[in-house]
Amino acid sequence: MRIGVLTSGGDCPGLNAVIRSVVHRAVADRGDEVIGFHDGWRGLLECDYRKLDLDAVGGILARGGTILGSSRVQPAHLRDGVERARGHVSDLGLDAIIPIGGEGTLKAANLLSEAGLPIVGVPKTIDNDIASTDVTFGFDTAVGVATDALDRLKTTAESHQRVLIVEVMGRHTGWIALHSGMAAGAHAIVVPERPFDIDELTALVGQRFSAGKKFAIVVVAEGAKPRAGSMEFAQGTRDVYGHERFTGVATQLSIELEHRLGKEARPVILGHVQRGGTPTAYDRVLATRFGWHAVEAAHRGEFGMMTALHGTDIRMVPLAAAVETLKTVPAERYAEAECVL
Amino acid sequence: MRIGVLTSGGDCPGLNAVIRSVVHRAVADRGDEVIGFHDGWRGLLECDYRKLDLDAVGGILARGGTILGSSRVQPAHLRDGVERARGHVSDLGLDAIIPIGGEGTLKAANLLSEAGLPIVGVPKTIDNDIASTDVTFGFDTAVGVATDALDRLKTTAESHQRVLIVEVMGRHTGWIALHSGMAAGAHAIVVPERPFDIDELTALVGQRFSAGKKFAIVVVAEGAKPRAGSMEFAQGTRDVYGHERFTGVATQLSIELEHRLGKEARPVILGHVQRGGTPTAYDRVLATRFGWHAVEAAHRGEFGMMTALHGTDIRMVPLAAAVETLKTVPAERYAEAECVL
Amino acid sequence: MRIGVLTSGGDCPGLNAVIRSVVHRAVADRGDEVIGFHDGWRGLLECDYRKLDLDAVGGILARGGTILGSSRVQPAHLRDGVERARGHVSDLGLDAIIPIGGEGTLKAANLLSEAGLPIVGVPKTIDNDIASTDVTFGFDTAVGVATDALDRLKTTAESHQRVLIVEVMGRHTGWIALHSGMAAGAHAIVVPERPFDIDELTALVGQRFSAGKKFAIVVVAEGAKPRAGSMEFAQGTRDVYGHERFTGVATQLSIELEHRLGKEARPVILGHVQRGGTPTAYDRVLATRFGWHAVEAAHRGEFGMMTALHGTDIRMVPLAAAVETLKTVPAERYAEAECVL
Amino acid sequence: MRIGVLTSGGDCPGLNAVIRSVVHRAVADRGDEVIGFHDGWRGLLECDYRKLDLDAVGGILARGGTILGSSRVQPAHLRDGVERARGHVSDLGLDAIIPIGGEGTLKAANLLSEAGLPIVGVPKTIDNDIASTDVTFGFDTAVGVATDALDRLKTTAESHQRVLIVEVMGRHTGWIALHSGMAAGAHAIVVPERPFDIDELTALVGQRFSAGKKFAIVVVAEGAKPRAGSMEFAQGTRDVYGHERFTGVATQLSIELEHRLGKEARPVILGHVQRGGTPTAYDRVLATRFGWHAVEAAHRGEFGMMTALHGTDIRMVPLAAAVETLKTVPAERYAEAECVL
Repeated sequence: MRIGVLTSGGDCPGLNAVIRSVVHRAVADRGDEVIGFHDGWRGLLECDYRKLDLDAVGGILARGGTILGSSRVQPAHLRDGVERARGHVSDLGLDAIIPIGGEGTLKAANLLSEAGLPIVGVPKTIDNDIASTDVTFGFDTAVGVATDALDRLKTTAESHQRVLIVEVMGRHTGWIALHSGMAAGAHAIVVPERPFDIDELTALVGQRFSAGKKFAIVVVAEGAKPRAGSMEFAQGTRDVYGHERFTGVATQLSIELEHRLGKEARPVILGHVQRGGTPTAYDRVLATRFGWHAVEAAHRGEFGMMTALHGTDIRMVPLAAAVETLKTVPAERYAEAECVL
Repeated sequence: MRIGVLTSGGDCPGLNAVIRSVVHRAVADRGDEVIGFHDGWRGLLECDYRKLDLDAVGGILARGGTILGSSRVQPAHLRDGVERARGHVSDLGLDAIIPIGGEGTLKAANLLSEAGLPIVGVPKTIDNDIASTDVTFGFDTAVGVATDALDRLKTTAESHQRVLIVEVMGRHTGWIALHSGMAAGAHAIVVPERPFDIDELTALVGQRFSAGKKFAIVVVAEGAKPRAGSMEFAQGTRDVYGHERFTGVATQLSIELEHRLGKEARPVILGHVQRGGTPTAYDRVLATRFGWHAVEAAHRGEFGMMTALHGTDIRMVPLAAAVETLKTVPAERYAEAECVL
Repeated sequence: MRIGVLTSGGDCPGLNAVIRSVVHRAVADRGDEVIGFHDGWRGLLECDYRKLDLDAVGGILARGGTILGSSRVQPAHLRDGVERARGHVSDLGLDAIIPIGGEGTLKAANLLSEAGLPIVGVPKTIDNDIASTDVTFGFDTAVGVATDALDRLKTTAESHQRVLIVEVMGRHTGWIALHSGMAAGAHAIVVPERPFDIDELTALVGQRFSAGKKFAIVVVAEGAKPRAGSMEFAQGTRDVYGHERFTGVATQLSIELEHRLGKEARPVILGHVQRGGTPTAYDRVLATRFGWHAVEAAHRGEFGMMTALHGTDIRMVPLAAAVETLKTVPAERYAEAECVL
Repeated sequence: MRIGVLTSGGDCPGLNAVIRSVVHRAVADRGDEVIGFHDGWRGLLECDYRKLDLDAVGGILARGGTILGSSRVQPAHLRDGVERARGHVSDLGLDAIIPIGGEGTLKAANLLSEAGLPIVGVPKTIDNDIASTDVTFGFDTAVGVATDALDRLKTTAESHQRVLIVEVMGRHTGWIALHSGMAAGAHAIVVPERPFDIDELTALVGQRFSAGKKFAIVVVAEGAKPRAGSMEFAQGTRDVYGHERFTGVATQLSIELEHRLGKEARPVILGHVQRGGTPTAYDRVLATRFGWHAVEAAHRGEFGMMTALHGTDIRMVPLAAAVETLKTVPAERYAEAECVL
């Protein structure tokens, strides 16, 4: 077989492990040929690629980032995107394309698949918000990085009697906040799925101080928002060059909590550090298995599907179903976390 | 309710996180009382315990070890073990006992449960060999520690052109070897489930050298053994005080591979470092969820069961079924790992 | 002897290691008595303290924060601060006081020393800006945390073709920026000691892009400022409650560089994570040695001095000299770092 | 200038950082040409090398091992070693050679220097036993790895009431044992500089148990030996292929202490993991500075010297003096560590 692989969308620890695994399984075990497109869909649309042999993937298993580069280009962005993709697949004699990406990438993958292209998707997201799979690689690393930071911040908050509001990634879902908050023993966890009431949150943190504690850690997902009517939420302002700049939720919460509690409160925004660098062992194993099974699915002709983790098994699930909804934090998982309050 | 909790068997990162979670859920949320028995079953059998309130579990979430201590004492070791346990449960007015432990502990738990005691088990093992649950806490940390070590060893082996035989834990099963070997890109993985043929292993490693590579990493589970007739395996010798001392499998393999390959080969035995220290975020979340659900099961009167992870859900499964067999590495998981050879 | 110890000022990894070492050396080896004042100078001024025996310092060596608490209270803040301190020292029968703290704390220590109190200082700063000592504990940990973050950010910047402006601690000096920037291979390092020219900085980063590179990492100390006339630097704004809020240097630089380079640029502010959590081995050894030598100095009656590292030796140096000037990054050290540009 | 660089001897974190720094300083800043010899002196003796430009050293700063490879070949091993080296230096038109290595390498460097070759040495050792420099890169990483392991082992020993004898590197000197033991709070530290008396050591550890403690951690350097007459030390045995195999000091100590104390005692041998993998920030900065200053020394024509750290300065010191003696742990440093017993 001749297989094309590409990585698209935001950075995610484990991308290189998938690429390596695809090449190992396809080239070494199956005798296939593999090419890698540069910068995601852009490479496919512009026929920009290179051959990937075993040497090309030497030493990349534990490395963050992606040796293929990435971009946010989508086939649907071009009027003739699908046709150009089809043309290049045909010209290059590709029997399968393995796009590795998040929600947007998988939607594009589904579009191309519906247009008849031989697609096997590999889901990727540090946010853990892709449906149809228990989890995907990148999430464990992001949670680990956030937890390490929270462990460090806790001793500082404790010795110096502060409220720290720690903003973690999660624009639409609170998975990283939930897991890192549980792992580090945060005293409140705020997620987008459940708009917060500032009075309740103040009361919750205030309770700790009434009970004699001298510090608190609040973990908040970047996409968290106040319940309607609960608190005025600052709008974006324009910088000197007219670009909109937003004040993050952690900053706004710290201003509000400091005022209401009469305690020093400080925001900490963890940022991109959560999506870079060497993946955890968990993510490397999952990414490697995804790559292996994607090649197998291609050989079985199971297109229009993506790899998914169900329990301890890797299964193939329809792309169409996976991109239909976001996987949000269910109420019962959030309830478990209240034990840490 | 009045709940007794104990930790039994070998060390495992996450024990303290379970204890803390049981106390948080039971005491803070449910208004229960919790006591902790010292040194596992010994504490129950000798009525040696202390009260656990919220302060008692402050700051232990991320700490390795167990604040309650552990031992290898089992109720079945005493003729009247079951009766003594029953008596103390009755004297102390306990409504539930939550033993946290591995296979041996859960067997004892099952025995006591069958004798009518109100048991809710929490499985614990760094080896990942307990059936009925996808995984348990401690395993992810052990794999992480082994993977970090392998990452370091790889650069050394590479620069200095050596074969390193790295022995990881796993007396009966090869889960740690499989996962850390996949995560670190080991060139051969040897597990107890599949006795190795020394000729095959030599050929496999030799192939790398023939292909121009100048080093190799072999990960071997401590319980791995040669296929019958494949290689003479050294017996234990007696030390100066007459205690039997065994030469580990990594040492024996390194002697054999050095001789057969004509390349410098060295054993590295990772040892206890795999079962101590701070748990990963993954293990802390799982341990916390196990503790939470154990308390809930006790309140629902679901005894004779243990907590288990199925996909992303915590379910209660019968202790009897869980202790029937060891969970070994299935052939298809081992096959996936061959992609890294 | 009877010795009082206290920790004052901002958090710094290694404070607990000093406290433990003082107690070990004084109590276990010298037969002294040690008391710990709560919350820095406040504890001394209000006679709020507790006895520290060996058990009190068990298990704290590797823990961040300080078991004694800290505050920013200074004796000079009270009209009768010095007299109250003298009175309590006399009432408590103290033969020596060991304050552990940064520049402000050591200035206060010097003041008390000049007033005749038996002071042996231990310098502490993550910023490395205390004179008379090669380095002090906390700095190595801060640099390590920043370097880990930079390692992660580098793969993200590279895969996603961005300029990342990473703000590290250092209000007056650029030591953390210099060391973490060198350690991580940053492409530009901006320190307070050398106000930056925005044109030069743009040219420097732009050069990388002209040379075909697709990303850049700029490390900037929080206290860095533009050269007069080089760039308009935003003033603080007031939040809804009227408190002044500053836009950090990394945010301002990213707006400016994005505009000038026409490349996506993003700020990352590492924040408090640099001053919390478990100290590195280096910092634990140094902190332990400082504690040990402080006790010895007290026994020799060497007051008005502080512990200092000179090469591999711990020496006692006069407090008065140490607090006279800040230790800034010298031009030749900055020149070495240009090799990484 | 035309500069040749090589890495020789055992692995050491930071080798790549020196190579990169030499190339950055020489090629980018000074307009020099740099070639790298393969596998240490072997490359020079066999004229096996490659050109090193900026691209060749991209991405290696944080990587363990050495991109140039290493070997234990020494010029003095060949009858005409010095002459062949001189010939190749002349043929290649080299103005300077920068060998990076430990004691053996620096002795060879001194030999070649005395024979008139333009040598600027860079010392490297994880053992910290090279004289004339405060410390060299690799040591901090080794101590960090050992300390991480000790932190993990401590919780295990504590929960499971054991004596753990942890063997760290250090054939001739106890620096790693001293620093990691101090950093982790070991209860006894055994170094080669001070042969141990088994009765004293037993008494020391026994004291802990008498005082009610239930575990102990003993750190022992691999080269530690019993005081004459104190304890029978096992000789090497021969394996099935007739190679001599030694029973390490930790294994022998654990047998002896278990017998004498009547407590479970276990050896843990950390091994090669201490000399591989990514260097700490401290080691990367030091390695980078050494590389930078080696190039500068070459340009100043300061040959027969090596880079050294004195306090915070990099100085050039004579190779001849540096290789005269090993730097051992002085009595006063060992005394400080007794505070942790």
